[in-house]
Amino acid sequence: MKLITAIFNGGEPAIGVVPEGEETAIHLRRAERAMDGKETIPSSMLEAIAQGDAFLARAREVADWALRYSGANYVYRLGDIRLLAPIPRPAKNVFCIGKNYVDHALELGDAADVPKHLIVFSKTPTTVIGHEETILRHADVTDEVDYEGELALIIGKKGQAIRREEALDYVFGYTIINDVTARDLQERHQQYLLGKSLDTFCPMGPWIVPSKFVTNPNDLRIETRVNGEVRQQASTKQFIFPIESIIETISKGMTLEPGDIIATGTPAGVGKGMNPPRFLQAGDVVEVTIEGIGTLRNKVGE
Amino acid sequence: MKLITAIFNGGEPAIGVVPEGEETAIHLRRAERAMDGKETIPSSMLEAIAQGDAFLARAREVADWALRYSGANYVYRLGDIRLLAPIPRPAKNVFCIGKNYVDHALELGDAADVPKHLIVFSKTPTTVIGHEETILRHADVTDEVDYEGELALIIGKKGQAIRREEALDYVFGYTIINDVTARDLQERHQQYLLGKSLDTFCPMGPWIVPSKFVTNPNDLRIETRVNGEVRQQASTKQFIFPIESIIETISKGMTLEPGDIIATGTPAGVGKGMNPPRFLQAGDVVEVTIEGIGTLRNKVGE
Repeated sequence: MKLITAIFNGGEPAIGVVPEGEETAIHLRRAERAMDGKETIPSSMLEAIAQGDAFLARAREVADWALRYSGANYVYRLGDIRLLAPIPRPAKNVFCIGKNYVDHALELGDAADVPKHLIVFSKTPTTVIGHEETILRHADVTDEVDYEGELALIIGKKGQAIRREEALDYVFGYTIINDVTARDLQERHQQYLLGKSLDTFCPMGPWIVPSKFVTNPNDLRIETRVNGEVRQQASTKQFIFPIESIIETISKGMTLEPGDIIATGTPAGVGKGMNPPRFLQAGDVVEVTIEGIGTLRNKVGE
Repeated sequence: MKLITAIFNGGEPAIGVVPEGEETAIHLRRAERAMDGKETIPSSMLEAIAQGDAFLARAREVADWALRYSGANYVYRLGDIRLLAPIPRPAKNVFCIGKNYVDHALELGDAADVPKHLIVFSKTPTTVIGHEETILRHADVTDEVDYEGELALIIGKKGQAIRREEALDYVFGYTIINDVTARDLQERHQQYLLGKSLDTFCPMGPWIVPSKFVTNPNDLRIETRVNGEVRQQASTKQFIFPIESIIETISKGMTLEPGDIIATGTPAGVGKGMNPPRFLQAGDVVEVTIEGIGTLRNKVGE
């Protein structure tokens, strides 16, 4: 089961389910109303995440019913709707982990760049776009736009000082993020925020896969392609800091909240790591595929 | 005229005005209703900021009326209400500028640490507390809690690629921030986010002074005291990057939005810059005073 935020046929964004097969999409609120007239399904993913397991159980029930009693105003062909980022407007900056794969740390520097402690920075909420939306090239601001394919997790429960052993219980689900980066700004301004936060620099999606459908998030194949050419190919097995460790460290003294998004870092193979570097140009298509999650695809615009 | 968010007598937070003299506080929504029965004043500061000049004009009209026809349910003694941060829950991380005073860059390093380009990092929304609220000591996480008194500006209009000449038109008003920092975490994790984002590490307030009451934000005296002892004493004249430059650089490629908060950096005199360093301890009282704005005071708890 995949959870989406989408424009189904004009109007306001709504949340939905994409069942196995990935051919249809169910408008959950409308299907629920048709099923039994109740209105427990919220209109936004952030509200749904706050409902936790109750939402997931109800979404499953409604989706199963909708597939049996298909109705034109709540069952759509996936190709006919417009996907948005699963969380189109996060309630705080997206947390990002830096240099969480040894080979990536090495391609941007040397052994001294392999971190002994977690590196955390952020992208502003204004950066977020969805699957198939356009990454702006920002040619007046940067000459070095680069991709970074990453597994991202969504926090499901409020917590502080979360112990490593319990950390995965706090994860609502997983999605894919392309941590698009202006390398020249990242370097020039020392702290990463500016180089990471140009408008459209956080493609996210295409959907959220709830935790219970992901057996081991620390063992997923991840691949990034530019115009079909494989650039990054790795496994989250190679994380320096696995997800439990990330959650433990971030939540020491800082309260994590439902809907918080943490991008877990990118493997080797970014454009800057090549010789000579190969940055993104207008017209390029970037795809990030993660095993068990899906493929996030975005074109680079002018 | 100062704008506050407060709990006036129990119940939900509301926005208000503190007139000259700083002895009373007016509950704007209730006063407006008493004045002419209208309901244009919103319940939150973020909504008020989005209304812009229309809100400021109406707030002035309502406050003037309330002072003439004082009523028990909308005019309070300032000492009888509980101030919250003027924006208790920002809609994204608070932007912070690093090393924006030469002497502060030098006290933490050497001439190479004086930045040639703006340094921008962020604090999560969960860090925000108000005037007189308690800064947690977080003794299990850090041994080096430090203060940083700073002038902060609040963005009033949406904008991208804002030109320096127009930048001040985008400022709704000014407040004070204490950019509390865990120095050991700041250093250990390279990027500043974690060391800057422990719960309660962003005291903000006591209020917002609208832009038109601040003649020159790049020429304000700023002073920080710990238990009455002056630790930081400077002027925003000493900014390496004045406010116009900060807004121009951040908005290059990144859209700024109404309610965005930018802390402009701290002058010399932080605890870490002393020999030996003097970090904050439980029971310490930190006050930050900025000319024309006010004084933000917070005690350090356990």
